[in-house]
Amino acid sequence: MSIDKLIDAVIERNNPTVLGLDPRLSYIPPHIFDTAREKNPEPFAAAAAAILAFNRGLIDALCDIVPAVKPQSACYEQFRYEGVKAYYDTIAYAKSRGMYVIGDVKRSDIGSTCECYASAHIGTVDLFGQRLPVFDADAMTVNPYLGSDGLTPFLVDGKMIFFLGKTSNPSAGELQDRDMEGKPLYRAVADLVLKHGKDRIGKYGYSEVGAVVGATYPAQLTELRAAMPQTFFLVPGYGAQGGGAADVAAAFDKNGFGAIVNSSRGIMAAWQKEGAPEKDFAAAARREALRMRDDLRRHII
Amino acid sequence: MSIDKLIDAVIERNNPTVLGLDPRLSYIPPHIFDTAREKNPEPFAAAAAAILAFNRGLIDALCDIVPAVKPQSACYEQFRYEGVKAYYDTIAYAKSRGMYVIGDVKRSDIGSTCECYASAHIGTVDLFGQRLPVFDADAMTVNPYLGSDGLTPFLVDGKMIFFLGKTSNPSAGELQDRDMEGKPLYRAVADLVLKHGKDRIGKYGYSEVGAVVGATYPAQLTELRAAMPQTFFLVPGYGAQGGGAADVAAAFDKNGFGAIVNSSRGIMAAWQKEGAPEKDFAAAARREALRMRDDLRRHII
Repeated sequence: MSIDKLIDAVIERNNPTVLGLDPRLSYIPPHIFDTAREKNPEPFAAAAAAILAFNRGLIDALCDIVPAVKPQSACYEQFRYEGVKAYYDTIAYAKSRGMYVIGDVKRSDIGSTCECYASAHIGTVDLFGQRLPVFDADAMTVNPYLGSDGLTPFLVDGKMIFFLGKTSNPSAGELQDRDMEGKPLYRAVADLVLKHGKDRIGKYGYSEVGAVVGATYPAQLTELRAAMPQTFFLVPGYGAQGGGAADVAAAFDKNGFGAIVNSSRGIMAAWQKEGAPEKDFAAAARREALRMRDDLRRHII
Repeated sequence: MSIDKLIDAVIERNNPTVLGLDPRLSYIPPHIFDTAREKNPEPFAAAAAAILAFNRGLIDALCDIVPAVKPQSACYEQFRYEGVKAYYDTIAYAKSRGMYVIGDVKRSDIGSTCECYASAHIGTVDLFGQRLPVFDADAMTVNPYLGSDGLTPFLVDGKMIFFLGKTSNPSAGELQDRDMEGKPLYRAVADLVLKHGKDRIGKYGYSEVGAVVGATYPAQLTELRAAMPQTFFLVPGYGAQGGGAADVAAAFDKNGFGAIVNSSRGIMAAWQKEGAPEKDFAAAARREALRMRDDLRRHII
């Protein structure tokens, strides 16, 4: 099961970190950019090549210590279909280096359209008599607004989803915290996660239907951990968004399992924060990933 | 303003229809498929070429009578980055034929990520000192679950958004209809639409912040029309999903404005429903689009 594969990867590295691969051009060392531009006169192709080279450098430097990556689709889509090809190539490369891949696409739609999104991101399509994988991430994020029709098509054997619960952004509560027949909307979403996830439990006691719960709202993280003991959490908001290791600790069970914590800019742009030479970007990312791992370890068990 | 451009296009054709370009391989005439396969040995490239050729045939046949197209991103993403290139080419071609384009992507995320999605779909990116458009639709659809952070980055000058209100799918009400502090969730979303749209009103009295409201729930459509007199509606659910012209009539104001009604399969696959020869697919689509136009006209004014 996909959830077991994820937890195995976490155990193997003793590290519940997921590297958010949300490339911004401003994070990319100039030498990577220059090479990409020389080889690609078309600007979108150059940007996509630079992103892919940067991602590959990070993946190479981190794959033995970080179990998972989470490429953020928006950061690739903004560089047109060339960027989407870099998204595809990033997923394939991370998998080839033994990392678990969560496609952070936050898709949702009516049922028949969700079937297409599921095929695209975690499933297969039937083309000329062949069943072919498409972007083929191990897991993807899904938005709950459309209800069960927007969830069930993503229950693909051997894959996992993370339904948005309480998100990490400042206005998350505008709708999610409001009282809905006696409990906040995010709890109604939690009920959907529990309903559809209860028969998809892996060997560690966690379900293939997970939830996104932001580190920036530690009280709700604590509440949802208690309410959803079999739901694995994807936790954004550590670092740049303001959440600390003490905040994310609430996402974990007493054995130190049950969640992975995302860091994007903190690791990707570590060379800039450190003031390291640009050619040292991958080593700086590794130093920050080790610091984060140790910070999490100190707090979660 | 983008909303005025849309309404001008509707007035010019005297037709409030938007053609949902949601290509399924099963709709595509075999001769288009065969040509695409001959020219593209790679299966995803062949599928993408077939979709684009089919879309171009439909756009050519319909651009003088249908004001807008709404390509559904999922149907393109399922054919990998090659499919996403067909999405890009479809948008560019529809615009070149004078059609208004709504990118049906239903994106949302935290604010900084929404900025990337906005750049991708309706905005520009800064590449090597140039401001470049990316997919460059006239409008896009946005999911409301993350609150205002997931809306404000999409307020791009000269473009329009449609926030999901009451969607057309069977489970829409699981969350959207539930009572939230005295009114259903979809009304809380409507309040966000009104708040952010009130200062973006065009010459016809409609705002650049629109809403998606399904034809399959005519009572809510009527309720929202009354509550949101300056909000333009994108109305899915006519035809294949079960809504009729009498149902969608509630989306329009007393002058027959205020909404566009989507049809996807009904028009795209009209040749199959008619039993027309495959080479007649575009003419069959035109016959169905004219039938739908006349059906809507009879009911809305």
